[in-house]
Amino acid sequence: MNLTPDQQDEINVLRAQSAPTRRAVSPGLEAILYQAIPILDHGFIRVVDYMGDDAAIVQAARVSYGRGTRKVSDDRVLIRYLMRHFHSTPFEMCEIKYHVKLPIFVARQWIRHRTANVNEYSARYSVLDNEFYIPAPDQLAAQSSDNRQGRGAILTGDEAAQVLDLLKHDAEKSYRDYAWMLNEGEEGLAVDPDRAGLARELARINLTLNTYTQWYWKTDLHNLMNFLRLRADPHAQYEIRVYADAMIESLDAWVPLAAEAFREYRLGSAQLSATALKIVKRMLAGETVEAAQSGLGKREWTELMALIGRT
Amino acid sequence: MNLTPDQQDEINVLRAQSAPTRRAVSPGLEAILYQAIPILDHGFIRVVDYMGDDAAIVQAARVSYGRGTRKVSDDRVLIRYLMRHFHSTPFEMCEIKYHVKLPIFVARQWIRHRTANVNEYSARYSVLDNEFYIPAPDQLAAQSSDNRQGRGAILTGDEAAQVLDLLKHDAEKSYRDYAWMLNEGEEGLAVDPDRAGLARELARINLTLNTYTQWYWKTDLHNLMNFLRLRADPHAQYEIRVYADAMIESLDAWVPLAAEAFREYRLGSAQLSATALKIVKRMLAGETVEAAQSGLGKREWTELMALIGRT
Amino acid sequence: MNLTPDQQDEINVLRAQSAPTRRAVSPGLEAILYQAIPILDHGFIRVVDYMGDDAAIVQAARVSYGRGTRKVSDDRVLIRYLMRHFHSTPFEMCEIKYHVKLPIFVARQWIRHRTANVNEYSARYSVLDNEFYIPAPDQLAAQSSDNRQGRGAILTGDEAAQVLDLLKHDAEKSYRDYAWMLNEGEEGLAVDPDRAGLARELARINLTLNTYTQWYWKTDLHNLMNFLRLRADPHAQYEIRVYADAMIESLDAWVPLAAEAFREYRLGSAQLSATALKIVKRMLAGETVEAAQSGLGKREWTELMALIGRT
Amino acid sequence: MNLTPDQQDEINVLRAQSAPTRRAVSPGLEAILYQAIPILDHGFIRVVDYMGDDAAIVQAARVSYGRGTRKVSDDRVLIRYLMRHFHSTPFEMCEIKYHVKLPIFVARQWIRHRTANVNEYSARYSVLDNEFYIPAPDQLAAQSSDNRQGRGAILTGDEAAQVLDLLKHDAEKSYRDYAWMLNEGEEGLAVDPDRAGLARELARINLTLNTYTQWYWKTDLHNLMNFLRLRADPHAQYEIRVYADAMIESLDAWVPLAAEAFREYRLGSAQLSATALKIVKRMLAGETVEAAQSGLGKREWTELMALIGRT
Repeated sequence: MNLTPDQQDEINVLRAQSAPTRRAVSPGLEAILYQAIPILDHGFIRVVDYMGDDAAIVQAARVSYGRGTRKVSDDRVLIRYLMRHFHSTPFEMCEIKYHVKLPIFVARQWIRHRTANVNEYSARYSVLDNEFYIPAPDQLAAQSSDNRQGRGAILTGDEAAQVLDLLKHDAEKSYRDYAWMLNEGEEGLAVDPDRAGLARELARINLTLNTYTQWYWKTDLHNLMNFLRLRADPHAQYEIRVYADAMIESLDAWVPLAAEAFREYRLGSAQLSATALKIVKRMLAGETVEAAQSGLGKREWTELMALIGRT
Repeated sequence: MNLTPDQQDEINVLRAQSAPTRRAVSPGLEAILYQAIPILDHGFIRVVDYMGDDAAIVQAARVSYGRGTRKVSDDRVLIRYLMRHFHSTPFEMCEIKYHVKLPIFVARQWIRHRTANVNEYSARYSVLDNEFYIPAPDQLAAQSSDNRQGRGAILTGDEAAQVLDLLKHDAEKSYRDYAWMLNEGEEGLAVDPDRAGLARELARINLTLNTYTQWYWKTDLHNLMNFLRLRADPHAQYEIRVYADAMIESLDAWVPLAAEAFREYRLGSAQLSATALKIVKRMLAGETVEAAQSGLGKREWTELMALIGRT
Repeated sequence: MNLTPDQQDEINVLRAQSAPTRRAVSPGLEAILYQAIPILDHGFIRVVDYMGDDAAIVQAARVSYGRGTRKVSDDRVLIRYLMRHFHSTPFEMCEIKYHVKLPIFVARQWIRHRTANVNEYSARYSVLDNEFYIPAPDQLAAQSSDNRQGRGAILTGDEAAQVLDLLKHDAEKSYRDYAWMLNEGEEGLAVDPDRAGLARELARINLTLNTYTQWYWKTDLHNLMNFLRLRADPHAQYEIRVYADAMIESLDAWVPLAAEAFREYRLGSAQLSATALKIVKRMLAGETVEAAQSGLGKREWTELMALIGRT
Repeated sequence: MNLTPDQQDEINVLRAQSAPTRRAVSPGLEAILYQAIPILDHGFIRVVDYMGDDAAIVQAARVSYGRGTRKVSDDRVLIRYLMRHFHSTPFEMCEIKYHVKLPIFVARQWIRHRTANVNEYSARYSVLDNEFYIPAPDQLAAQSSDNRQGRGAILTGDEAAQVLDLLKHDAEKSYRDYAWMLNEGEEGLAVDPDRAGLARELARINLTLNTYTQWYWKTDLHNLMNFLRLRADPHAQYEIRVYADAMIESLDAWVPLAAEAFREYRLGSAQLSATALKIVKRMLAGETVEAAQSGLGKREWTELMALIGRT
């Protein structure tokens, strides 16, 4: 379960309200505002606030008094130009705030993006819920044999069953002992009047890294796209990639022109090294280039051939 | 003149529009949104967008699903607590965007605050207007005799007249030559078909530092308060302080509870050094403390006595 | 054990080397460079590089061509002036790099300081060691009764024994299962040829939050002092405070003049709110001020009385 | 003149000193440490401190206890891997500090790079020197006809002479009046006892944007490379590009392996948009692709053809 009925009620109350504003409004984001999109087994992501829209990017690039251009087509051309030339400051003029529920090991990767504002639920102050991430069977992967930080084939049979069993058992046992040490009546345990109960800031250290936490996370559009480019990448760990994928949908809803340019010039783009560029030019000039004489190492050669459709 | 009729028209169009939003709305800021507040002789500042309100601070501090507390009095207590204990992250959840017109020498001080997003009018790309800052007579101050980076008495008589005359003349001459070098027909000059015209990125180097520029400047509430604490301080240069003072008014309109806490725990607060604290304790215990035995240097002693009303 | 013999050997090799440099050298830091200072049961902190010294602060404040002033006494006055007036940029000119071994729950607090550079040991890429933090008996505290995020009395007797037992047992069990799931021969387990082994990036999610990690952490002197002011504070959690305390010793060794000013104007200083300042002035003027008429809430009143020695 | 004899003496004193250190030492940078490299007519750039070398990048990437790998060839492979995959944190572990003398309009572009530490000479506090930038004749360019923020052909004949004359005259006049308003005896002017003299923070507003200022500027290797990629680019304004070019030389001297990887994967690399990549693949498959059917706009098509040698 990703939300309790009470939490869903609170969200419904917010969604039912409406007030007039003179600010720029993004109809796409208004439609999904506050809604929790389920991620993984207990997580979610939801947009809780935003500032600006496509026109705000144009307005800032022009330092204009009004709303920028009149025509959407002009806005589109300018936004693509800015994205293509890495003129990032106009994109920084839009801001978005998410409420995210995510496993702690995902939070540890996420927080490495420093240009953002974060408020995390405090386990020094409050008691964490008994919720932890257990991979779905089709995500229970072996270590990759050719990538030291990736996944290989999916585990099957007994091994898969045993792994799932251990993950569940250890997380449950750690949480139960956390609750016992707190002695606050969590998990249906009776409060023992003869025990003082361990401080929350200490008891939490017994929890496993797949325990869910949550935070408010706010960033500007430029840094959001940096985050998405890295975390929606196939090399990113699956458990953070699913959050990034959902956030790309909110990007589409929020700033459709910027999102389109992002796909063209970032997500779907390719970087050619100086040597790779020379090889492509020689090939286009009709020359046959062999790996051995290319000047590229084996892995870079293979990657380049895959990129340009020569596998 | 701070705004042309065209600019005022564009602002009026924006102010006349209204759309429903599910987001948090700050009635105080909505009332003044887009309005230009005149600053100095040709400058202005206006709020062009914002995100969040007092309740958003509470909501983030609690990582809550809904709107935070029901009662304003609870929000007030929590916001004061956060401010007092330098828990800055909840304040980072609110964001504000200004459009500012300001002299270049002020922009150079302002930009030193790095945790902000900026889009400045580009004089590589466009031609700057013929507007420059000339101090009002009551701001035409001599160098301070006891503060190496401050102002002393106001200049009077011939000296004042000559200084104003030189400032005006040099800025006008520099601008006129800028326009001539551009050869683009600015300032009523005919375009000379026999001259190529100097590149804009070069011609602008002839302008004086009191020429006006403008930018979109966006920051979060925490960093805004840091900016205001330093730039609304009596030690800040007058020409930036007047912008900070106007921004404090927008702070009051936007987040009245945070603004109140800001005055109590930042603007109106005092920092006592370890030694100063010891002195105050001794005095409160009835002891007479002399400057010579205080452990403070002369200037720090004088400042402490002024602070605690012992001058 | 905080270091293996191999690790100590590597450190010894580095400590034995020496090369001439034209750069500023801090004799105090050179003396302890690379040495691991043990923290908690398995952690440590060691300075692995630095840039600048007290004179570099002066040099930057003066934007000078040479070494700044000739006299240490002049440097001291200037450094105190800069610290007192929150002129932070000259302190940013010095940089320090630490290698830290610390429990993951401490790393999660630490990383919230964003203005720093971090390289953490990757458990996606490598296998973590079997080391976890167990509080010493005198740190096994109950929840504080008057501070929702603090510690109260020390647990004793059976409760203490049981808590320690649970913490150890759960961490060991989680680690053993981590090793089993990896199937890489860790912990003396035989590699099972019939099992593929779970990917490292997944297996690690089974570990508890007291597992040790390590990182290189680099920051400038200004941001280091911000970190220390917050994390050496009595309100900081004990397990991060012990790191901050050790880092203050490296501060003393590195930049003795800045460290002295830091104690005077930050660590040992006090902040008086606008209302508190008024109360102190009234008291110094001989007036009797009662809590009820003070304008302060109960808690703020109590804290102020403690601060000025009126408890 | 870029340096006075006194300034050169101070630099010579620093260059003559040497002390042993246990830190990583970069022989290439030690050789040029403190030396001023002349830039433009009165500017310079010099490295005044640094931290780390190529091995420090490897050491951080591995979070190792000692010096990283033994073999330079292994370091080279790892550094190229990190650069290629945008693993930026190990590069942040190296730091460099420059002393730069530069025209104010260049400083205004430079300061937009926010992830750096800066101490600028204060014209509120001190008097600026009478030095301003006048373009060399071969840099006196007209506005570009096809690039709204670029330069076109070089001005010649009378127009060039008049422009140079105006630039010199206006800067000199503004400076002379600055000196007169200060009434501090600058420029050989007698101090007039009947005039109070205008405050420095006000008098400076009369100076032109080509006046020289100076600062200490410090950043990490990752952000330095970001700066260089943007400012050594042909689209950057010439007057900042010459600084970037000189800084690339210091990069070569400091971290030769990282510098080599920087040229391969950043400076000499090319970014293909999603559409451009499709076109290249079609061409490599033997297809003839026409501009009109390419899906690219005219300008992007021209740029792509130039990039892949099809002009």
